[in-house]
Amino acid sequence: MTKLALSALIRPLVEPRLPQGLDVSFFANREEALALAPEAEIGWFDFNEKEPMIEIVRAASNLKWLNSIYAGLDFLPMDVLIERDVTVTNGAGINAITIAEYVVMGMLNIAKGYRDVVRAQDRHEWLMDSPGKRELAGSKALLLGYGAIGQLIKPRLAAFDVEVTVVRRSGGEGVLTPDQWRGKLGEFDWVILAVPATPETDGMIGASELEAMKSDTVLVNIARGAVIDQPALVEALKAKAIGGAFLDVCTPEPLPSDDVLWTLENAHVTMHLSGRAQDKMFMRSADRFIENLNRYLKGEPVGPVFDPRLGY
Amino acid sequence: MTKLALSALIRPLVEPRLPQGLDVSFFANREEALALAPEAEIGWFDFNEKEPMIEIVRAASNLKWLNSIYAGLDFLPMDVLIERDVTVTNGAGINAITIAEYVVMGMLNIAKGYRDVVRAQDRHEWLMDSPGKRELAGSKALLLGYGAIGQLIKPRLAAFDVEVTVVRRSGGEGVLTPDQWRGKLGEFDWVILAVPATPETDGMIGASELEAMKSDTVLVNIARGAVIDQPALVEALKAKAIGGAFLDVCTPEPLPSDDVLWTLENAHVTMHLSGRAQDKMFMRSADRFIENLNRYLKGEPVGPVFDPRLGY
Repeated sequence: MTKLALSALIRPLVEPRLPQGLDVSFFANREEALALAPEAEIGWFDFNEKEPMIEIVRAASNLKWLNSIYAGLDFLPMDVLIERDVTVTNGAGINAITIAEYVVMGMLNIAKGYRDVVRAQDRHEWLMDSPGKRELAGSKALLLGYGAIGQLIKPRLAAFDVEVTVVRRSGGEGVLTPDQWRGKLGEFDWVILAVPATPETDGMIGASELEAMKSDTVLVNIARGAVIDQPALVEALKAKAIGGAFLDVCTPEPLPSDDVLWTLENAHVTMHLSGRAQDKMFMRSADRFIENLNRYLKGEPVGPVFDPRLGY
Repeated sequence: MTKLALSALIRPLVEPRLPQGLDVSFFANREEALALAPEAEIGWFDFNEKEPMIEIVRAASNLKWLNSIYAGLDFLPMDVLIERDVTVTNGAGINAITIAEYVVMGMLNIAKGYRDVVRAQDRHEWLMDSPGKRELAGSKALLLGYGAIGQLIKPRLAAFDVEVTVVRRSGGEGVLTPDQWRGKLGEFDWVILAVPATPETDGMIGASELEAMKSDTVLVNIARGAVIDQPALVEALKAKAIGGAFLDVCTPEPLPSDDVLWTLENAHVTMHLSGRAQDKMFMRSADRFIENLNRYLKGEPVGPVFDPRLGY
């Protein structure tokens, strides 16, 4: 009988929908998870901290399928997963809708100077003119990364009459290839980073990329902090060499309270909240797990698959 | 020779594009405008204040066409315009793009609790969870008013997978008629007011309409303050009977610094800035005027026409 070890947190969402004939156990804490791990064929071992997840994955010597609500799982012991040939499904795309919404929100906020409107309301002061006077309509955006999130960002911006140029290996109309976009950086009002965290994307926006941007270009990062050379960005923001930055991610996280980023008038720090700005994550993850479970039991492929060899 | 009296403010934008054979004068202040008014066949008499515009229109005894960058011209002496049979073109729709963008911005801000993110950045505090957890995707909006602005709001929201129901006299699919929407108010997450200011829309959202809304419905007003019974709204917001209000307009304007609206955590006061959050208004207005002028000289109809008998 197939043995499953699942977090009690998702019990109410999955238990009523589990297929018959399974041996399903739910754990409420790390110790219970560790006790169940060695026997489990299927495990959903999510914790708020990374450390117990690493320990439990190490202990899961008979695991064939590991599921997680998280997208970024590169902190797990990749060598163990590879050696045991574990299929890993992750939460890629589960937060994509809210993150895409957050990106457009950030662009609109900067375009209209809305942060200063919030501050004015807090002072009970009626502003006579808008602190921001940009329109999304007619502007141009470069979208780096065209995965689940990028694919949701594009149509939303298109509805605002933003001309969106995507960077993709395959090329095509309205598309730049990875060796083309740097040469065109000066053409865009918005540069949106939605790339996966890989060695190739590490530091992909540095001093020379920032220098190539227009003085009013706004950089939006919902990928990972490491995608940007942050000291170079701070210098560019201080010098007003670019228009601003909307940073859902940064280095490190949490940002220390004395970090200069908090204080720059053209830096918008949103504390990695974009993916959390929704309440449907558990429901979507449970839906996906049940669908995958039915496929798994029939020997069909599950997804989306996280590849321990690639780290995403 | 056709005599034109135009504000010097728009001179750089229109002068190079004026057709030949016209007698065009530019005025730099009220006195110059008053001196030119009686002879002018075509007048563009905009001032920041209403009072000089009223005086100059009264003095323009030979006026055949009055143009303005403003949409709301009901403060002008309607009886004078009617008696002299003056054609009036206004700025309806000139600000429509930025206002539509502002509406979506406001909805996203409330959905994600972004105001509290701004305040947290000001405190250098890294929030661990999103103050707002709503998604636009899958939500339902009632859009009252389907003029230039409403028609731009709808496709923008549709791109976010918001189900938009429009109120229009003509009815149709996905449309409610003016006698139907009140009975359906409880079905919507967002109620967006984009109606013109007329006696019929005065106070159209009062205590009973607010009571019919869901406890998390957000009311968005980019029409006129008078469309809402503001004391009833304040009561509903205090009692948290609705989710919140995004108020670009209110009563009176400017809102006095001791008004309770400033202080309510679920009221978002944006100081009638939505239309000002762009820098293309003069350019668009000049484009429109030149196009209208060429039509006028050929005896063709101009637009958009403001009807002094209707007041919009």
